[in-house]
Amino acid sequence: MMIGDNQALVEKIVSEIVKRLQSYGEEPMVPIGVSNRHVHLSKEDLEILFGTGYELTKMKDLKQPGQYAAQETVTVIGPKGRFESVRILGPVRKETQLEVSISDGFVLGLKAPVRESGKTQDTPGIILKGPKGTVEKDYGVIAALRHIHMPPDYAAHFGLKDKEMVSVEVGGLRKVVFHNVLIRVSDQYVLEMHLDIDEANAGEIRNEALGKIVKG
Amino acid sequence: MMIGDNQALVEKIVSEIVKRLQSYGEEPMVPIGVSNRHVHLSKEDLEILFGTGYELTKMKDLKQPGQYAAQETVTVIGPKGRFESVRILGPVRKETQLEVSISDGFVLGLKAPVRESGKTQDTPGIILKGPKGTVEKDYGVIAALRHIHMPPDYAAHFGLKDKEMVSVEVGGLRKVVFHNVLIRVSDQYVLEMHLDIDEANAGEIRNEALGKIVKG
Repeated sequence: MMIGDNQALVEKIVSEIVKRLQSYGEEPMVPIGVSNRHVHLSKEDLEILFGTGYELTKMKDLKQPGQYAAQETVTVIGPKGRFESVRILGPVRKETQLEVSISDGFVLGLKAPVRESGKTQDTPGIILKGPKGTVEKDYGVIAALRHIHMPPDYAAHFGLKDKEMVSVEVGGLRKVVFHNVLIRVSDQYVLEMHLDIDEANAGEIRNEALGKIVKG
Repeated sequence: MMIGDNQALVEKIVSEIVKRLQSYGEEPMVPIGVSNRHVHLSKEDLEILFGTGYELTKMKDLKQPGQYAAQETVTVIGPKGRFESVRILGPVRKETQLEVSISDGFVLGLKAPVRESGKTQDTPGIILKGPKGTVEKDYGVIAALRHIHMPPDYAAHFGLKDKEMVSVEVGGLRKVVFHNVLIRVSDQYVLEMHLDIDEANAGEIRNEALGKIVKG
């Protein structure tokens, strides 16, 4: 292959990549990721549950860069019920946080408030049980506020802003419009809307389904 | 009390009732009823499960006239899981039908299709177990198509028709708009929109919450 051929090939690849990155289509579509109940652990709680110096083992990368499902799970014990084998998502965070659906809350016997991730003040507590120990948290259980992880170029293309609330239309026979969907913009994000299982089932929405962002 | 007093009292009561029946307000609001999983039984299946000549015992009237929750429950057994103590709703119907949420379907190990009540053709089967016997149904499991029971005067007031599909907006922080909500008009109905538990939790909607009907 001559240099001339290579240049044409390079140009073809580059222009195709640029086109795909820029061509979001006419409408602000967003792929849906459905989240089952899961827990984020602080380093301190991880060590109580699994032993001093313990580190999580990656099972599967999540769509958001750097985030992963760990091989490890914990038992989650509420006032009225429990869940075995609740997946830990890594890496460790500053604070331990259990994300459940409202249905899960009924099983556990607590009312999970709808909250943005990390905003765990005045939320119900929970007991976490691992192979090496048990942690009793005074707070940290939330039902995640539905939200969209959004890269800056997508946001700019459609005139959307970080922390803006939008509505998202999705589904077939069970079509729903979800209001108050929080946009979070970061160059660390891949475009993805997170729903929990209750929300997904209400719209009969599968993982990777496409929603359409509607303003307001 | 004189006849004159009585006439005034009658007039007062009648005009108050008429006023309440007619005053639907500016907007077509509709109270929500949240349905947990339940089963309707044919007379034949009731007798297999509970014994020949058995009749259901009313536990609680439902909002729709003549409908009631029975004291009796059955065990429901799917390919992968089961639910104990699933409530029977009476009176008996022409055909047995199990109504579950999509979440329940995952527990049972089947895919419950979204269907209008009674339209059970080509739906998954299920095993029902009662104190006196077991019934194996070849079909009859549905996830109920969300719908509104509507009296004719309400429908006429807001220009809505039997079998029309509308959208309903409901909820606070988790506000959703449910599309494809079926209107069913009958003078036997009390105004009420039925959602299942998945749908209610997706919108953080409590029983008796008010939704607003939006056309289209």
